[in-house]
Amino acid sequence: MPYRNDISRLSPREIRDLIRKGTWEAPTPGLAMGYAQANVVILPDRYAFDFFLFCHRNPKPCPVLEVLESGRYEVDSFAPGTDIRTDVPRYNVFRGGTLEGTRKDIQEIWQDDFVTFFLGCSFTFEEALLRARIPVRHIEEGKNVPMYITTIPCRDGGIFRGPLIVTMRPIPSDKITRAVQITSRYPFVHGAPVHIGSPERIGIADLSRPDFGDAVEVREGEIPVFWACGVTPQAALLNGKPDICITHTPGHMFISDMLNEELATS
Amino acid sequence: MPYRNDISRLSPREIRDLIRKGTWEAPTPGLAMGYAQANVVILPDRYAFDFFLFCHRNPKPCPVLEVLESGRYEVDSFAPGTDIRTDVPRYNVFRGGTLEGTRKDIQEIWQDDFVTFFLGCSFTFEEALLRARIPVRHIEEGKNVPMYITTIPCRDGGIFRGPLIVTMRPIPSDKITRAVQITSRYPFVHGAPVHIGSPERIGIADLSRPDFGDAVEVREGEIPVFWACGVTPQAALLNGKPDICITHTPGHMFISDMLNEELATS
Repeated sequence: MPYRNDISRLSPREIRDLIRKGTWEAPTPGLAMGYAQANVVILPDRYAFDFFLFCHRNPKPCPVLEVLESGRYEVDSFAPGTDIRTDVPRYNVFRGGTLEGTRKDIQEIWQDDFVTFFLGCSFTFEEALLRARIPVRHIEEGKNVPMYITTIPCRDGGIFRGPLIVTMRPIPSDKITRAVQITSRYPFVHGAPVHIGSPERIGIADLSRPDFGDAVEVREGEIPVFWACGVTPQAALLNGKPDICITHTPGHMFISDMLNEELATS
Repeated sequence: MPYRNDISRLSPREIRDLIRKGTWEAPTPGLAMGYAQANVVILPDRYAFDFFLFCHRNPKPCPVLEVLESGRYEVDSFAPGTDIRTDVPRYNVFRGGTLEGTRKDIQEIWQDDFVTFFLGCSFTFEEALLRARIPVRHIEEGKNVPMYITTIPCRDGGIFRGPLIVTMRPIPSDKITRAVQITSRYPFVHGAPVHIGSPERIGIADLSRPDFGDAVEVREGEIPVFWACGVTPQAALLNGKPDICITHTPGHMFISDMLNEELATS
């Protein structure tokens, strides 16, 4: 496997080639900087309308970037030449809402009735925050972002339902306005914060005990700022207990040819 | 039927009551100012995913405000207490892509597999333009907005496909920047212009001969500015030739309890 320093200079297409060949099967943060990475959800078409509805009703945690029609595995829009059965570094396969296992590709279990959803990922706005010299603590600490299950319910969409799950980044008080402004420009990758300060108001008892990911330090003069998290749709998906569904393995995202800046509003 | 001057002061709920009783069956522009009106598309659930996909891939002409699950006729989100079978002033019923006729209500032809889509309507941003003293010519002239079929294709969504259809408003050169800024704030009601000036570049040969609606005067020093139009999804819908679909009759919109300002971005 090439070292991360080498691969980080490659284009999205070159990285996807390595992934397809099985040469790269590690997490994707830091790869193809400047290009949008996406969450992937694949499920039979009988569930697709309900899932689409859940995402539409909860756009902050579930921003839909693209959808492939039933049976389609080639992506022609934001990553031409891609095969969704092979071009994600690692897949999670769920049956009846339970993880069955992970795979490096899903060609053998592909079904003609599979619909693929690509959802935006917060890597895009983190890059924008860093460009504005706003610290992103979990990146500084080399950790996964801390994630918390809140008491805020999502709106139901057919069989899919669940709570809003959030990520937390500690932001210095004097940079919160700028952090709101910057992330507001990226509604397709979770957008503006959903909550600022007072974690107890959204059902988070202890910041040092995240439900997923790693705890990070909140320093003197910093306020915890919460953004909607892409784990939200995964949790709602599993609550619906579809016979089968496939997602990327967390952190092992799909890398598109779309520039982060193309996802920004005016 | 009450005079428009009387009805224009009524709340959305009061107007919907009149519509439900059959007392009001006329067009809705100018009613419940400040509240969002919506385009309505109702079709069997076997077509719903394709139509959702078409809308998602063409968000400027087809901004989805809300979707009701299969068989649901009560709106609980943005207009509680509403029955979509009775609360639109007039409905168009299409079979196989052809207009069969119009109706004052659709209770008799309602099907348990009907899915209802509400799409944003440009009345919302016109109100915002007027507040900023930007002229809206067809309102000044008491006409319907001019609409044109362009040579810009929409992205296909399943069986639904068709060209982008645009509305045109002549804007004084020195107010175009402001018109772009204002309408950019309303992505859920067609948002920013899709084209400014040079109608021939998008396949419009003669502004005085719109494909739908009425021609309006373009004065010296004004530039024609084009916005995506809500007729686009209707045309794509009919191209797909669903066995049955129902829409509002043009101009006879669904009036929601949502404030226009709630549809604005930051």
